Amino acid sequence: MQVMAGTVFSTPLAGSAGAMLALIRSGTATTRSALAQVTGLSRSTVSQRVEALIARRLVYEAGDGASTGGRRPTMLAFNADAGVILVGDLGATHGRVAVTDLAADPLVEMAAEVDIATGPDAVLGWLEETFARLLDETGRDRSEVTGVGIGLPGPVEFATGTPVSPPIMPGWDGFAVPARFRERYGVPVLIDNDVNIMAAGEHWARYRHVDDLMFIKVGTGIGCGIVASGRLHRGAQGAAGDLGHVQVAGYPEALCRCGNLGCVEAVAGGAALARDLAALGLDASSSRDVVRLARAGEPEAGRLLREAGRVLGEVLAAAVNLINPAVLVIGGDVAEASEQLLAGIRESVYQRSLPLATRHLQIVRSGLGDRAGIIGAASMVIEHVLSPAVVDAQLAAAAP
Amino acid sequence: MQVMAGTVFSTPLAGSAGAMLALIRSGTATTRSALAQVTGLSRSTVSQRVEALIARRLVYEAGDGASTGGRRPTMLAFNADAGVILVGDLGATHGRVAVTDLAADPLVEMAAEVDIATGPDAVLGWLEETFARLLDETGRDRSEVTGVGIGLPGPVEFATGTPVSPPIMPGWDGFAVPARFRERYGVPVLIDNDVNIMAAGEHWARYRHVDDLMFIKVGTGIGCGIVASGRLHRGAQGAAGDLGHVQVAGYPEALCRCGNLGCVEAVAGGAALARDLAALGLDASSSRDVVRLARAGEPEAGRLLREAGRVLGEVLAAAVNLINPAVLVIGGDVAEASEQLLAGIRESVYQRSLPLATRHLQIVRSGLGDRAGIIGAASMVIEHVLSPAVVDAQLAAAAP
Repeated sequence: MQVMAGTVFSTPLAGSAGAMLALIRSGTATTRSALAQVTGLSRSTVSQRVEALIARRLVYEAGDGASTGGRRPTMLAFNADAGVILVGDLGATHGRVAVTDLAADPLVEMAAEVDIATGPDAVLGWLEETFARLLDETGRDRSEVTGVGIGLPGPVEFATGTPVSPPIMPGWDGFAVPARFRERYGVPVLIDNDVNIMAAGEHWARYRHVDDLMFIKVGTGIGCGIVASGRLHRGAQGAAGDLGHVQVAGYPEALCRCGNLGCVEAVAGGAALARDLAALGLDASSSRDVVRLARAGEPEAGRLLREAGRVLGEVLAAAVNLINPAVLVIGGDVAEASEQLLAGIRESVYQRSLPLATRHLQIVRSGLGDRAGIIGAASMVIEHVLSPAVVDAQLAAAAP
Repeated sequence: MQVMAGTVFSTPLAGSAGAMLALIRSGTATTRSALAQVTGLSRSTVSQRVEALIARRLVYEAGDGASTGGRRPTMLAFNADAGVILVGDLGATHGRVAVTDLAADPLVEMAAEVDIATGPDAVLGWLEETFARLLDETGRDRSEVTGVGIGLPGPVEFATGTPVSPPIMPGWDGFAVPARFRERYGVPVLIDNDVNIMAAGEHWARYRHVDDLMFIKVGTGIGCGIVASGRLHRGAQGAAGDLGHVQVAGYPEALCRCGNLGCVEAVAGGAALARDLAALGLDASSSRDVVRLARAGEPEAGRLLREAGRVLGEVLAAAVNLINPAVLVIGGDVAEASEQLLAGIRESVYQRSLPLATRHLQIVRSGLGDRAGIIGAASMVIEHVLSPAVVDAQLAAAAP
């Protein structure tokens, strides 16, 4: 089997209605004559396909454009209100849920305490109810739901939406998450790791022009999402980006929840920092306490975050050499709480990475904060349901 | 600018002649009626496009297939003799040059001592002469050359074919390598890092069914090529895969040629092993001496290679966690010389990587040995010159 065959099969006709929608969405061709020019198709074929998109409400006529001599052309625009996406970003103890439009902009969103360890029935039942309630709030109908996207705090086999041996999710191993949402809404349901969707969110909202990006989440633990050549890199088992359990030098006694010694997460993660702050006599038992102390300007918290940044930066230096991203985005609540962590990361990365790999490297804080996950989940679903192949298949199914 | 737009623009019509060539090459559709079925185009349109491919000698009629009731269909086959590719794999002191057919099979090849440090004029002049001589040997004409592919021992900006601050290539920084070959042959000239083309070669020849693969080269230094989602991952500056300068624990005094201390290359690379063997009183001053001593069964060489494998394996464990490849291929002359290095790598990777990332991980020796580079360079050029977009453009240019 040749690599090229797959490329051809996943590719619809360049002049299909779905492909035209992509041209309109991107602003590449926004009139019927521009579409005819770009696709090489006749004006009548273009008009016919545009009518199909208008009939599905995916495209609307946005008024007249500038004349180029003759009649003013009618501008075509993508209708981001043609449907809604239901998205959930589930962490260990915390969830964020939203209904977004087809531009990944939340119409309504909420956050709540939810313990992932209560298992899939309880958590997904809660999520289902929350989806229904938020959908009600938007006044949109169930029939308008175009897709569902959910992030989970563990490794996920993306093709089936199934968690695979997730360490902090008892009861979820091998559970087929999409089924119950697919039954209820009859739409595509995509499940991914929470850090992957955060990476997707930053890429979609702030760095869509960049091909290679890494997103590092520092919360209770440490995780990483990789965008390579413009797409999420999930790896052979969907386990890519597991950076928290890389061994660092100089901490042979730091016991990690994975059972190994000296993992970067056991030194620089939020739980490890809470442990170290407690040992100094401060009131800290979780990463939230670290966040609280850092925000309060506690000097020991600042000092430990700086050192954590240096240690994490050594691991990131190796990752930067290996992957050569254009942007390294640092997020997660511990990272958000203090400039010290980022400063320490920068110190190590610029010291240890190769000049060529850091020449144009940006190391930045997350711009989306705790909304990165829901925006990323929405963008992942949107890229799927609005892809030319899926749009064409839907139009074909809807044709009389 | 949306991500999807680029996808559409780089995509030719699914039923174009170039796309049909891809279907024939892959064996997906090898008769005119199968092509009509797969593309949804009329039999006459298919026949017209197939004729264009036959006229360019890219496709030939390979006899009659099995009948499915009516007339026996004529089988179509890709003609790997429709052109030749000139390829060179240049190392620090050694070069391999070949002329291959369009299936990346070498028609003639040779290896020679060539010192990359003599600069681009001398080295590329030699390469140009060697190409001409080898082409003569095949009896093929200059007009049959379809593309040129060259690997260089340093970072390369792939889009322009220009080395970027290559540490062991004085005089090459910023030198536009493609120009002289493009002038002479008037065909696409692709330049890449030597380890990238080795990774591409292993992927093409042995693991084309695998999406995610890492190739590790252990020679004088240590390098890495990454195939992600079926394609070479080059990174933002073409610097991806630089694994040799990751810092390892426990060797604070090992001075690396990059100026840092404790790089894995300064501990486990061929030059480092030669240094350590010489310190033990053995006759070793280069990685070739390491190879010689290892092949001769010198116990100290075996012991050091085992330990080098363990140290390199710690770095690879982190890379496996991050990238989650399905296959880790270990090549380069030092790796080829002994089972000990591979054994040490396996030991560390399986000990330190996450269970999910190693559950199905294969760690194997290179199956192509020192031919990985030329086969990879040829495959890279072939994938480009036979891509639907390029074939369609050529057919359009050749049309009367």
